[in-house]
Amino acid sequence: MRKVVVMGGGTGTFSILTGLKKYPLELTALVAMADDGGSTGILRDELGVLPPGDVRQCLVALSRESKLMRELMNYRFERGSLRGHNFGNLFLSALEKSTGSFDKAVERASEILRIDGHVVPATLQKVTLVAELTTGRKIMGQGAVYEANLTKLRRISLKPKARANPKALRAIKEADAIIFAPGHFYSSIIPNLLVKGISQAVCKSRAKKIFICNLMSKTGQTGDFTVYDFVDRIKEFLGCDFDYVIYNNRRPSGWLLKRYAREKEHLVPTVLKKQKHAFSEKFIGGNLLNKKITLTRYPDLLKRNLIRHNPEVAARLIVKLLK
Amino acid sequence: MRKVVVMGGGTGTFSILTGLKKYPLELTALVAMADDGGSTGILRDELGVLPPGDVRQCLVALSRESKLMRELMNYRFERGSLRGHNFGNLFLSALEKSTGSFDKAVERASEILRIDGHVVPATLQKVTLVAELTTGRKIMGQGAVYEANLTKLRRISLKPKARANPKALRAIKEADAIIFAPGHFYSSIIPNLLVKGISQAVCKSRAKKIFICNLMSKTGQTGDFTVYDFVDRIKEFLGCDFDYVIYNNRRPSGWLLKRYAREKEHLVPTVLKKQKHAFSEKFIGGNLLNKKITLTRYPDLLKRNLIRHNPEVAARLIVKLLK
Repeated sequence: MRKVVVMGGGTGTFSILTGLKKYPLELTALVAMADDGGSTGILRDELGVLPPGDVRQCLVALSRESKLMRELMNYRFERGSLRGHNFGNLFLSALEKSTGSFDKAVERASEILRIDGHVVPATLQKVTLVAELTTGRKIMGQGAVYEANLTKLRRISLKPKARANPKALRAIKEADAIIFAPGHFYSSIIPNLLVKGISQAVCKSRAKKIFICNLMSKTGQTGDFTVYDFVDRIKEFLGCDFDYVIYNNRRPSGWLLKRYAREKEHLVPTVLKKQKHAFSEKFIGGNLLNKKITLTRYPDLLKRNLIRHNPEVAARLIVKLLK
Repeated sequence: MRKVVVMGGGTGTFSILTGLKKYPLELTALVAMADDGGSTGILRDELGVLPPGDVRQCLVALSRESKLMRELMNYRFERGSLRGHNFGNLFLSALEKSTGSFDKAVERASEILRIDGHVVPATLQKVTLVAELTTGRKIMGQGAVYEANLTKLRRISLKPKARANPKALRAIKEADAIIFAPGHFYSSIIPNLLVKGISQAVCKSRAKKIFICNLMSKTGQTGDFTVYDFVDRIKEFLGCDFDYVIYNNRRPSGWLLKRYAREKEHLVPTVLKKQKHAFSEKFIGGNLLNKKITLTRYPDLLKRNLIRHNPEVAARLIVKLLK
């Protein structure tokens, strides 16, 4: 069975895993551990645990458990002192506390949720994402980095310097393909590559390296990035080329784009113009838009659930490349 | 397989179930639903759920899951806004919220925890335990009733009047034996009998009725009750006789008794003196003391974990009566 590593964090990774799990592949979700927003942030602060949020999403994506169990994991308390906590986050935090290690907690949760594949934290150290601007200003924490204007970014790093989880390095080494899932650029995609040893392991691996480009860019972060710009920028962190880049070539409806524009997010150009310079990657376009528009009850999730990747189409394109 | 119903609430029920589950019996734990203390009380108040605490303890007692999973369910958050919550309580509350019913939540939890037997809430209505004193004072809520001086008790009831869970009535009807587990008298044992239909069903049932008497009595509640007094008092609520009464005939060490005396709790006399009046019950004495003295990290649990029933001995005595 082909071994596929999917690197990323939140919702984008969830989509890619959801699509890929229907194929006979041995999947490993490699999860960045810089998350500190919402429920995850509170648990980190109050309990000193490692960030459960993204791990939970990956576990749910790969779970063979009933729909109810998966819904339970994502269930979000709406009232009282538990407000905003996802049950699955509490589950992972309580498991970490009672087993004494996040690694064991993820292993046990994987058994309980009967997951197909593996969920592996990129590092087991407690890290904070730090963005330093050319003005000297430092932005601390993934949540703050996500919100910040990074046009004057000088350096982005993890504090303290984090060693890779040996399981992560092994999965990368043994992989037949490594997928870079879409997600918030500086706060979800890049943090994996800031863990010492991860980029080197990816570059050394004989795996096919596939980058799934974001659908949208964000003013102040990925500004008016084209697909080429995304590839160039991520390669600065990775240190080597991809084999394939998968990008979206279909425009969403105007009202959706307007809605995103209000949040200063813009469609990544769906037509590849002339390359700025030579790329060794093969660029593959497809209609990656999810037709299913999910409206959630949570205002903060409303937007990001509108324009997102179609799991089936993305998976089909990826699987073709594995042959 | 013999069908055995164990009625009760917290720690005492846990002990009896733990002992009985080693025998080939079909066990049903019938749980009073008046609990409103600690984590359970907060969840009731904030989320409007039914009280999960005692149900959780019964689920854990009957679970075939690993020690880790059982420990996880009892894991208590120690810091931050989650402080004091048992993970298992959050689990049941999130299940209730995501399934839309406490009954389904308990069913699903029973599957997830792979329990041997059944855990059945006595009622599915939201109830408050109310004690009315002869002074006219009303004490509202199980926690308050537990703390109160009830020497002037006139009436104890559930508000609103609660209908029995049909599953509870069926279990009682089909039982070969009904065990009244030890526990806080007015706040754990009696509440089951305040649910409409439960006492009548017990009295009508052809099951052997066995009362396991408390080890300790509490000033202001069960005062200086002898075993006979306990039996008399509970029968006022039940409305019929037991077949057997199992009581402890061994004295714990003096330092333990002193420790309890500080909390105004006293050993129930271990020697049966002359009966006040005729009893149809058969009284069976045994060394019911648990030799294992568990010291926990939680100061509020310290005391009640010292003198408690020995699950193995209690179970052995019960099983003998089933033959």
